[in-house]
Amino acid sequence: MIPVISVVGTSDCGKTTLIEKLIPEIVSRGYKVGTIKHDVHSFEIDHPGKDSFRHTQAGANTVVISSPAKVAMVKTVESEMSLDKVINNYLLDVDIILTEGFKRENKFKIEVLRKEVSSSPVSKSDELILIATDVENFNLTGVPKFDLNNAKGMVDLIEGNFLKNREDVVSLTVDGKNIPLNEFVRKFLTGTVSGMLSSLHGVSDPKDIIIRIIEKD
Amino acid sequence: MIPVISVVGTSDCGKTTLIEKLIPEIVSRGYKVGTIKHDVHSFEIDHPGKDSFRHTQAGANTVVISSPAKVAMVKTVESEMSLDKVINNYLLDVDIILTEGFKRENKFKIEVLRKEVSSSPVSKSDELILIATDVENFNLTGVPKFDLNNAKGMVDLIEGNFLKNREDVVSLTVDGKNIPLNEFVRKFLTGTVSGMLSSLHGVSDPKDIIIRIIEKD
Repeated sequence: MIPVISVVGTSDCGKTTLIEKLIPEIVSRGYKVGTIKHDVHSFEIDHPGKDSFRHTQAGANTVVISSPAKVAMVKTVESEMSLDKVINNYLLDVDIILTEGFKRENKFKIEVLRKEVSSSPVSKSDELILIATDVENFNLTGVPKFDLNNAKGMVDLIEGNFLKNREDVVSLTVDGKNIPLNEFVRKFLTGTVSGMLSSLHGVSDPKDIIIRIIEKD
Repeated sequence: MIPVISVVGTSDCGKTTLIEKLIPEIVSRGYKVGTIKHDVHSFEIDHPGKDSFRHTQAGANTVVISSPAKVAMVKTVESEMSLDKVINNYLLDVDIILTEGFKRENKFKIEVLRKEVSSSPVSKSDELILIATDVENFNLTGVPKFDLNNAKGMVDLIEGNFLKNREDVVSLTVDGKNIPLNEFVRKFLTGTVSGMLSSLHGVSDPKDIIIRIIEKD
C-alpha cells in the first residue's frame, strides 16, 4: 500500500504551511508526493468560458484536460468520495500521500499544534506518528515532537518508517471499497496475474498492472 | 470497453459547441458522460493563494481536492499522457467518453465541418461514425451526415451502436498501455477474479473490481 499520512489540527493551525515544508524535503529525496485536500465547501477550480467548463455545464460527469505538462480532472459526485476511493482512483503512481485534514479517517497522522491557535491536539496519541509544534513544554507520551520548522527531522522519521524497504503494491478495490489482502491472497493474485500476462502478446516485464472488471446489471 | 468517440475538425469548426449539444442529449437518456479535452498549451486550472496551488508549487506531483459535490485533480506529467492512459486512470465510471480533439488517435470519430471554416474533413472516412455539417451538398460515401443542430439524430446513432447491449467491461492496462483481450482471456480473467473474491470476507456481489499491482525495482 502507498503510505498515507494526514496532517491534522484545528482550523488555521498551519496545516498547509507544514505541508509546504514537508513536500520539497520528501521530493528532494527522490520520492513522488501526492496530496489530498479536504474541502467542506463547494470549490471552483474551473472557470466560465473555458471549454472544459462548458463540458461540465452541459452535464458531463467527468471532464479531463490533458496537456504535455499537466493533466487535470473535475468530477461531479453525489456525495463525498471516501478517502480510500480517492486514493485508489487518482493517486496510484506516487510514493507517498499527504492529506490536509481528514482527521476522522483511519490513517496515520501528524498533528500541527501552534501556540497562537490551540494548545491541545485533536488526535488521539495512538494515531499520531509525530507532533509538529512550537509549544515548548508540550509532550505527549510516546509521540515524537518536532519544531514546526524542522522538516528534515520529520521527513527522516517518515522516510525511515514508510518509504524505505517498500514492497510491491497490490491493491484490490471492490465497489469503491479497499479490501485488505493477507499475504496468501496477495501472492495468489500476483502469481495468477503474472502467469496470465506472460502468455499475452505485447507484454514484457510489466511494472504496473491494472485490471478492471465492471459487471453490468 | 467504454466507448470513446473523438469530436474532431479544423480549429474553430465548433467542436466544443457540438459537444455541448451532444452531452445533455446523452445524459437525458440515462448515461454518464466523460469528456477529455486536448490542450496543446500549458493551462492553468488552479490559482495562486489556494491551498491546492500551494501544494503544487511546493512540488507535489498530484494534488486532489475532494468535496461533497466535486473531486478535482491536477497532476504534473513529464510528457503528454497517452489517451488510453488518461481513460484508464481517470474515466472508468462513465458510460461513454467524448474527446475534443485527438484526431491522430485510433478512436471512432465525429467530424465537425462548418462551411464558414472549412469544406473538407481532417479524418479518413473509415474512422468516421458520422459527420456533423452545415455544408449542404457535402457527402462522404458510407458516412451518415447530420445537421450541426441535430443532436437527437446523432445520439440515436451513438446510442444504437455504442450504448445498447453493453457487455461487462474487462480492461487490462500494463505500464499505461491498454492490452487488447480476446474472449478467452476475458473469460479466464473474470472467472479467476470472481472465484478469488468469493472466498474473501467483506465482498458480496461485486459490480466494480479494480486490481492494481505495482512492482518495485
